Amino acid sequence: MSLLETINGPEDIRGLSVKQLETLCSEIRRYMIECCAKNPGHLGASLGAVELAVALHYVFDTPTDKIVWDVGHQAYAHKIITGRREQFRTNRTYKGISGFPKMSESVYDTFGTGHSSTSVSAALGMAVAAKLAGSDEKVVAVIGDGALTGGMALEGLNNAGSMKTDILVILNDNHISIDQGMGALHNYLLKISTSETYNRIKNHIWETIGSSRLRRGVQKFMFSTKMAILKSGSLFESLGFRYFGAIDGNDIGQLTTTLASLRNIRGPKLLHVITKKGKGYKPAEQDQTVWHAPGTFDPETGVRSIPAAGGPARYQDVFGETLLELAKADRNIVAVTPAMASGCGMNIMMREIPERTFDVGIAEQHAVTFSAGLAAAGRLPFCNIYSSFMQRAYDNVIHDVALQGLKVVLCLDRAGLVGEDGATHHGVFDMAAFRAIPNLVIASPLNELELRNLMYTATLPDIDGPIIIRYPRGAGEGTPWRGVGFKPVPVGKGRLLHDGKDVALLTIGPIGNRGAEAVRKAAEERGTQVLHYDMRFLKPLDEEIMKDVCSKVRRIITVEDASVTGGLHDAVCSFVSEHAPGITVRGLGVPDRFIEQGSVKQLTHECGFSTDDIFNAIVE
Amino acid sequence: MSLLETINGPEDIRGLSVKQLETLCSEIRRYMIECCAKNPGHLGASLGAVELAVALHYVFDTPTDKIVWDVGHQAYAHKIITGRREQFRTNRTYKGISGFPKMSESVYDTFGTGHSSTSVSAALGMAVAAKLAGSDEKVVAVIGDGALTGGMALEGLNNAGSMKTDILVILNDNHISIDQGMGALHNYLLKISTSETYNRIKNHIWETIGSSRLRRGVQKFMFSTKMAILKSGSLFESLGFRYFGAIDGNDIGQLTTTLASLRNIRGPKLLHVITKKGKGYKPAEQDQTVWHAPGTFDPETGVRSIPAAGGPARYQDVFGETLLELAKADRNIVAVTPAMASGCGMNIMMREIPERTFDVGIAEQHAVTFSAGLAAAGRLPFCNIYSSFMQRAYDNVIHDVALQGLKVVLCLDRAGLVGEDGATHHGVFDMAAFRAIPNLVIASPLNELELRNLMYTATLPDIDGPIIIRYPRGAGEGTPWRGVGFKPVPVGKGRLLHDGKDVALLTIGPIGNRGAEAVRKAAEERGTQVLHYDMRFLKPLDEEIMKDVCSKVRRIITVEDASVTGGLHDAVCSFVSEHAPGITVRGLGVPDRFIEQGSVKQLTHECGFSTDDIFNAIVE
Repeated sequence: MSLLETINGPEDIRGLSVKQLETLCSEIRRYMIECCAKNPGHLGASLGAVELAVALHYVFDTPTDKIVWDVGHQAYAHKIITGRREQFRTNRTYKGISGFPKMSESVYDTFGTGHSSTSVSAALGMAVAAKLAGSDEKVVAVIGDGALTGGMALEGLNNAGSMKTDILVILNDNHISIDQGMGALHNYLLKISTSETYNRIKNHIWETIGSSRLRRGVQKFMFSTKMAILKSGSLFESLGFRYFGAIDGNDIGQLTTTLASLRNIRGPKLLHVITKKGKGYKPAEQDQTVWHAPGTFDPETGVRSIPAAGGPARYQDVFGETLLELAKADRNIVAVTPAMASGCGMNIMMREIPERTFDVGIAEQHAVTFSAGLAAAGRLPFCNIYSSFMQRAYDNVIHDVALQGLKVVLCLDRAGLVGEDGATHHGVFDMAAFRAIPNLVIASPLNELELRNLMYTATLPDIDGPIIIRYPRGAGEGTPWRGVGFKPVPVGKGRLLHDGKDVALLTIGPIGNRGAEAVRKAAEERGTQVLHYDMRFLKPLDEEIMKDVCSKVRRIITVEDASVTGGLHDAVCSFVSEHAPGITVRGLGVPDRFIEQGSVKQLTHECGFSTDDIFNAIVE
Repeated sequence: MSLLETINGPEDIRGLSVKQLETLCSEIRRYMIECCAKNPGHLGASLGAVELAVALHYVFDTPTDKIVWDVGHQAYAHKIITGRREQFRTNRTYKGISGFPKMSESVYDTFGTGHSSTSVSAALGMAVAAKLAGSDEKVVAVIGDGALTGGMALEGLNNAGSMKTDILVILNDNHISIDQGMGALHNYLLKISTSETYNRIKNHIWETIGSSRLRRGVQKFMFSTKMAILKSGSLFESLGFRYFGAIDGNDIGQLTTTLASLRNIRGPKLLHVITKKGKGYKPAEQDQTVWHAPGTFDPETGVRSIPAAGGPARYQDVFGETLLELAKADRNIVAVTPAMASGCGMNIMMREIPERTFDVGIAEQHAVTFSAGLAAAGRLPFCNIYSSFMQRAYDNVIHDVALQGLKVVLCLDRAGLVGEDGATHHGVFDMAAFRAIPNLVIASPLNELELRNLMYTATLPDIDGPIIIRYPRGAGEGTPWRGVGFKPVPVGKGRLLHDGKDVALLTIGPIGNRGAEAVRKAAEERGTQVLHYDMRFLKPLDEEIMKDVCSKVRRIITVEDASVTGGLHDAVCSFVSEHAPGITVRGLGVPDRFIEQGSVKQLTHECGFSTDDIFNAIVE
């Protein structure tokens, strides 16, 4: 029986020796690799944070003491040792456990996460609540160096640093977030953690503490680090935090000793730990970007499963290659991504035209307003942000782009249901949020070729202000697109996909292809003739199509891979109620509840807008 | 003829002597006070930044060189000397000039502002564009110490600091934003600007430069400040900026000399200038919070106009007093504001229960997630954020509050048209943005008493998740509320205001009172009997009311002080199209364009939802 099999909660690790903790960490790592090999997940960051998770639960009295994991990519070991060892096999699957901390899943998951940079704010809230209650419980936020560049993390530090509240922020610094780390903070952290000071601390002080243990150790530790603080942690000291570190975050002995010392120090403290992304698994250590989320692989050889050849390209490939093609032809084009260059395909342009491609770090607000600045100075920026992350830059789209009428091409990748990343990552609110904003054009392509043509159209004078192009994660429809000549898309115009008079089907985006399947089936099996339009633009709504539809049918079905509230359905209802009362409108899409993780197919079925659901709505 | 009368653009000041610049600054100040005494505006910050505006246009070759003013409260002198001296008399009035920089107004307004913390990002975009174009133009961002705590300013600094791009950030530090400055950064700035180092620089180095002028001065300046950098600007140095200062920002000679030196230094630079909010006008210097936006006043005596006694209380008073009352009765209640304690009325609770009232600085994202952390730890937070500023925290409401089902009471002050602050400040997109978000309850009170009762209801178990309460800026309806006993509001239920069968009027929020006036008038003048419901809740929509309405009338008019897209109108259309096709719905509210400044009355008329407009829609 392995040690890991005896761990059913944090209380089971608290009696272990350092030697045993080391064994446990190895076992957790092996188990994590074994599970993720079959059932893909965010392996790299979690491999790096095994010792951190074990040490935190070893030293702190969880769940009374509270650990808030930022983003949550790195929290697999935390899940495994807090009673979810077996459930971890269902990680990120339909009805399984979430890939991120989630309050409803475990009392040890003190705050739900998924998006970056929220941990300091949430932890400060908990720490203030504890203080008000006169409780002595401790609160720890664990934040990566990537997440630290998100503005709200700095807002949180600024606020926490001016309070007397006890809070420990652990900066889990692996020098890389998903792509290579970006920004001045990254350079700064690299500098302070590789300086002589750091090595001196590492070699001298920590060993001293390690041998003499807690009580005496604390004194020496405090005294010795005081010198280090002045030299290396001044940024955090400026923000009112006491800075400790940097220490080796993959050394469980050093970690537990340090955390035990820090546990009883009052006020806002920051411990800088250096961890290695992919730690303990050679392939993952060697290519950290790829192994951030490697998909399935052979755990023995480290060979990743290759998608079957000949399948359709991903929308991300289409975006990336088309952007490069457009940028080569038009020197005015620049590209901006908040730390998702490889995720969205912008790395293709970055390799060939680095001087016009800007990875600004995890900083969605800045990404949009930086793009607005570029546009104000006459450039044509393509700013690519995942739909659910764009929620962070909502005000920037309104205030810095739309209000000023600046021509920024806002590409919303991962729009619609995204699958295994679950509730925090589904991009389903964008249509509702942006439809009400003046000056915006909002489009969604039916397939790969149309994404290409919409991007091209965005570069033409036909569009003289901002445009949003939303498209989903992953494989396209197999529509040929590579090397196909560009063709402008008429702005605000949809197109007829199937003529009919029994009922109208209005769709937007690639879900229209599922609609087309249902339309064919309805014709074949029931002889129902459906008037099917691909609306293509949510805004402006194609009123010619609407008039045509309203003159021909008495029943309309709308389908959108987005919240059924506020998007296409509501736009159609609004038109009908004013101009053609008497027509019934039924909306298929994401219902008014948060949707958990699963395959896109499972979730589309759950939400009721699969091909079968559309078929049923048609023939009902 | 005054000197100011000869200044029709920045070129007219570039030949002036320091003595003349001083005279000009005095004249600008006098003119600004004279104008703002009659026509209210943001006087305090602009008085402090007169020398800064003059010096920038004196040293930099505007409009080729670009100045980006953050927020824009402080940019009145900039407006006055860039060709808008006479128009400044129309500041913030209907069809007059905007109170904020605005691209369509002047080529010198390089970027539209109004919300905080955007300037570094926008300026960096412009600077990168200039670099790509091989242009030598300079870009300057001017940001206040308050705005610096906004996360996106730090995102911008982090990104700029790692680039080689030339950019000058001027930190206009008046030690106060609107209320007293908050957070660790504030303390840090205070420390570095009042340290011995600062005074040494001030007395020694700057005088040296002042006398020997540019070329030789630069060398000494560089050499001398290098020592200061190590001691005082380390925060900004950590972020990759060269730090200069702090210097006296109300000393035009020192400013012009310093700026001229910095103009030719490459890379990212930050100049820290200390200015005095309200500078040159005694009453404004003495009470900086009140004189941030003092309303009208007598310029000679500094006596501010007192609103006529006996008028209705403002919703802000109702919020503030009710919050205190509830918090006194329930120790679980805490309150959070991002730097708007006096604006929203939370200062009332802050005075009496400071330990449970948190001003977190200009940091909307943090404010919401900090509130979520408090709620996760069992507290009941009232988080008050102006509607248009809540756009900054959109993701936090979705991801940190609604998804997790945390009970946070989100009070959206200044919802609807706000008047003179104009397009950036109207709170008209909240209903559309939040209606699509699961788990939210969204309410808007008809009057003062109902705001009070909604706040009370939010503390009851009837509400077991987040609730949004939106209400407007300024005076209520005169409904008695002070001392009236609390009464719970049934969640998701509206109420009948007038019975009828000719046409239905569905309203939400205080605009319902205008609706009621129109209903009375229609009955009296035309005998039209209107079925008028105050919906009270946008979400959940009261389906009983909807069924009643649909069974009685064939025509519905909706009225909302918000975008007519995505809010009440669409919710009603959606219901009707599914359940009662055949009923016509007409929506009154803010149309699909950005609305500029003016009185609320003027703007409501322009948008077409004044009492007369509602009347016309009823009898049409």
